[in-house]
Amino acid sequence: MPDCIFCDIVAGRSPAREVYSDENVLGFLDIRPVMRGHTLLVPRTHSRGLVDLAPEAGGQLFAAGQKVAGAMRHAVGADGVNLLVNDGRAAMQTVFHTHLHVVPRHNGDKLSFAKGLVVRRDPNPDETAELIRGALAR
Amino acid sequence: MPDCIFCDIVAGRSPAREVYSDENVLGFLDIRPVMRGHTLLVPRTHSRGLVDLAPEAGGQLFAAGQKVAGAMRHAVGADGVNLLVNDGRAAMQTVFHTHLHVVPRHNGDKLSFAKGLVVRRDPNPDETAELIRGALAR
Repeated sequence: MPDCIFCDIVAGRSPAREVYSDENVLGFLDIRPVMRGHTLLVPRTHSRGLVDLAPEAGGQLFAAGQKVAGAMRHAVGADGVNLLVNDGRAAMQTVFHTHLHVVPRHNGDKLSFAKGLVVRRDPNPDETAELIRGALAR
Repeated sequence: MPDCIFCDIVAGRSPAREVYSDENVLGFLDIRPVMRGHTLLVPRTHSRGLVDLAPEAGGQLFAAGQKVAGAMRHAVGADGVNLLVNDGRAAMQTVFHTHLHVVPRHNGDKLSFAKGLVVRRDPNPDETAELIRGALAR
């Protein structure tokens, strides 16, 4: 798909901090994380959104989300996780290649979550990516 | 599962405004909708969260989410949809039976969405449920 940044990442033409990889799905850190560890999972095959995503590919995406969600507890001490798909511009989709957000949450984090929605920055993303890869390899 | 309201709904012991049903997944209106049409999809088999949800069941849940998301465009004129799993109390999970939120979104709805997060009420949920069932049957 021309002019799709996530296709470029999947193809290795653009850099990303990869944290998860299987036959069908690639996962990498969001460059503007709401919380430390905020990961995006994308199907390797391009689709614009939920409507043109094959149900089988949707299932593979969600299964990857379950794995990464589980790893967040070890990786960044998460007490919970939000899985989120923003489908369509009205739903705040900004990159039109289907993706699943995995956002780690912590007990009592409402203020830091609100701050994260504004700041969207991780001071040490390389370390964060390493922690998630390590937790997934456990 | 004793004392699980979603298991009670799946078993027909508690009422709900059903909008979607297949072999593995049941969908019904959230009684406190953030937006009109806000639907919850639940696996018929109990799991507490993503960790004890079988990957196959997760795939079935997500595939149902894709169908209901597509129907929202016809049912309530949605321009987009958020799919959301809140996994764990820290992530705002309140019912501990895994569920996928399907939240219709409309262009420029940020204010009504913010209002919906507070008000969480649909004045005519029976009509809303009928609209979604109709859109799914198209």
